[in-house]
Amino acid sequence: MKSSSVDTVLEVRLRHEPGTLARLAAAIASEGGLLCEIETLRIGDEQTLREITVETRSSGEVARMIAAVEKVEGVTVMSTRNRVMDAHRGGKIRVASRLPLASVRDLRTIYTPGVAQVVRAIQDDPSVAYTTTWRGSNVAIVTDGTRVLGLGNVGPLAALPVMEGKAVLYDKLADVSAIPLVLDVATPAEFVETVARISPGFAAIHLEDIRSPDCFEIEERLAERLRKPVFHDDQHGTATAVLAAIINAAKATKVPLARARVGVIGLGAAGTAIARLVKRFGVDELLCHDPDPSAAARAIAVGAQTVAFSHLMANADIVVAVTGRGKLIAPELIKKGQIVLALSNPDPEIEPRVALAAGAALASDGRAINNALAFPGLMRGAIEARARSINQEMMIETARLIASRTEPGELVPSPLARELHDAIAAGVVRHARKTGMAGTAAP
Amino acid sequence: MKSSSVDTVLEVRLRHEPGTLARLAAAIASEGGLLCEIETLRIGDEQTLREITVETRSSGEVARMIAAVEKVEGVTVMSTRNRVMDAHRGGKIRVASRLPLASVRDLRTIYTPGVAQVVRAIQDDPSVAYTTTWRGSNVAIVTDGTRVLGLGNVGPLAALPVMEGKAVLYDKLADVSAIPLVLDVATPAEFVETVARISPGFAAIHLEDIRSPDCFEIEERLAERLRKPVFHDDQHGTATAVLAAIINAAKATKVPLARARVGVIGLGAAGTAIARLVKRFGVDELLCHDPDPSAAARAIAVGAQTVAFSHLMANADIVVAVTGRGKLIAPELIKKGQIVLALSNPDPEIEPRVALAAGAALASDGRAINNALAFPGLMRGAIEARARSINQEMMIETARLIASRTEPGELVPSPLARELHDAIAAGVVRHARKTGMAGTAAP
Repeated sequence: MKSSSVDTVLEVRLRHEPGTLARLAAAIASEGGLLCEIETLRIGDEQTLREITVETRSSGEVARMIAAVEKVEGVTVMSTRNRVMDAHRGGKIRVASRLPLASVRDLRTIYTPGVAQVVRAIQDDPSVAYTTTWRGSNVAIVTDGTRVLGLGNVGPLAALPVMEGKAVLYDKLADVSAIPLVLDVATPAEFVETVARISPGFAAIHLEDIRSPDCFEIEERLAERLRKPVFHDDQHGTATAVLAAIINAAKATKVPLARARVGVIGLGAAGTAIARLVKRFGVDELLCHDPDPSAAARAIAVGAQTVAFSHLMANADIVVAVTGRGKLIAPELIKKGQIVLALSNPDPEIEPRVALAAGAALASDGRAINNALAFPGLMRGAIEARARSINQEMMIETARLIASRTEPGELVPSPLARELHDAIAAGVVRHARKTGMAGTAAP
Repeated sequence: MKSSSVDTVLEVRLRHEPGTLARLAAAIASEGGLLCEIETLRIGDEQTLREITVETRSSGEVARMIAAVEKVEGVTVMSTRNRVMDAHRGGKIRVASRLPLASVRDLRTIYTPGVAQVVRAIQDDPSVAYTTTWRGSNVAIVTDGTRVLGLGNVGPLAALPVMEGKAVLYDKLADVSAIPLVLDVATPAEFVETVARISPGFAAIHLEDIRSPDCFEIEERLAERLRKPVFHDDQHGTATAVLAAIINAAKATKVPLARARVGVIGLGAAGTAIARLVKRFGVDELLCHDPDPSAAARAIAVGAQTVAFSHLMANADIVVAVTGRGKLIAPELIKKGQIVLALSNPDPEIEPRVALAAGAALASDGRAINNALAFPGLMRGAIEARARSINQEMMIETARLIASRTEPGELVPSPLARELHDAIAAGVVRHARKTGMAGTAAP
């Protein structure tokens, strides 16, 4: 599995003469290790001290790789460490004060007696909480850990590092303060009740990594109950990023999207949301396939036809596969000139190079088409506009903006560009104002 | 009410000649305003621009004070603003990333695929979450807003600025990341259930501003259910700070504490906790008074005698009053040489100067004896030690450390000294190790 890849940092002392590093590199390669960075820490007359980062496919390979390095003549391994585990030490996020606390006056402003004034102002007018507390820009990232990445039901505690990762993305890409909350709950009803009870302090609820079909029920009931955005990223963040990719793929291959046949394979959380958004975008002919009968019902509800897998592959101009089943699509099923987005992680339904060799006009896997393109700016725009929900039109607006900011030759831009998320937030605010959604959230 | 005091910042243009500022100061004083800071923003030949901070006792007085200033000859008010409300703009805290996000490598470390390794490590050994997520140092500050400051039941949303204030103190005084959670719940059972469900992501639970007697039930049930510290600050933070003040008061007046008669008036959350901690500290003779029969039962449970108010005042060497009732103690009730801590905010049971005039050897109100002396270091020590609870001995250790770091002539030190909280945290860790409490928390 690609997602198991381990980065190991080796501190090594090398004899300072030509060939030592070459032997070291060969030893790493002999055990399947991918040599990444080499940094020189110290150079002496006879020895150099270097830090070498090596990627291996599993933790089993790490030990073999290190053993191979240790046998290289002229090389001594001083220490080894796991780069990812190291980076996680102490956690990835923390709550920080935005104000100084250096004087008694600061204390009296931040806490008693000054704060009483703010309490009373909110009592008189709850909307004052938007501007005087973090509630105005604070998102809860909530999961029960039942469907985390490709790893399945890992439970709430083990899901925490993933939620912290999302909070980092919110902070760094869109200046949104986001709090991971990992819930120990047994049923969708408990999930909903818990989120409703903690909701007063939050501007919006970001749902994450919840198993299907629970995720549909949880999102729907919370959206009914809370007058603030409730956004299940695995559905809508994915659908928005995928729509952006489809828009660009159609443009690149000169397929007119409104008249294209789009096929969606796999109607879990992501597939259903993709089908709904693509339909709403204006695609007329939408073909869906999923062996599960309840999934087919969801497809019909969004206005798609359900068809056999082979029929879909033979007829769709654009194929989007989100099944979680690696190598599902055999090369001989690819239609000449087809656009193939095989998005399952870590193993796509068909490798892009295989699809291209089989005649696809354009093919991509899920690595580039990242939710992080969509959710940070979309959420910031929605809470800035004080919209009561994030609707399909805001997602389409976001997809258009993502698509329009893509370099030629790419399907989507890098999610690391701050300007992308600023532009999305501004676009969503504009859209909310235009459509009367602005200012509809709970006070 | 003192807690209603409002700081107004006036930007004023003054004629640049002797006497203008004096007239301005007189006008402010004439409406009862307290002149605080004066800052010069710009000096011209004929005019100066200044920023003047004025404290008034209520928002009603602000308008009258401004009107008086506007009438002063040679003075023009350019703008006015409320300093506290201004400081609160955007909220006092936010979640921030501890790691950079500048490259694809950073993204792959923080999020997929790197993070999967951390998820699996926690699945294999839940204690790995201590060191690789914020769970190791992350405290939930939880309230239902039923008893906020002196303001009563303001509800969850209006309680949020107070909880954010606590989070600022945790961050700035003890490097603890703390998350305000304001709960919309109707019963203690709902409160307990909600906290239990969100607890996996937190190292400890800090309870705050919950009405009595609900607070006792909530704390007790959570402490039974969760193997991590559950700390109700209005009880134990207050009791710890008060014990420190009592230790120093006894020392200053040469009353040997173990043989002193200590009286506690008012057995709400704070009074009950003070009585329990003082008893545990070794005070033999503890007199309590509260008109409520259920409160008297609590006093008996901690080993105190319940007595009439007049009996207590006539016999106690040290009187601690936490009734919420200003001016409860008439000066003629003060016994010669008595130590009087009248702690209700904003109006103490007796003003310190009145108590001193009536013969008290030492008197103080609640302004200096602040919970912020105790909870930041105590909590950090407990979570650093991975103790399953914060027990009475840790509180006594904390009170001793607070008392020992007090300047001569004071009852307690300033809570703003970082070293105080570092010393408390280190003391609590040492104590937890010595008593076998270290490492007893849930993984």
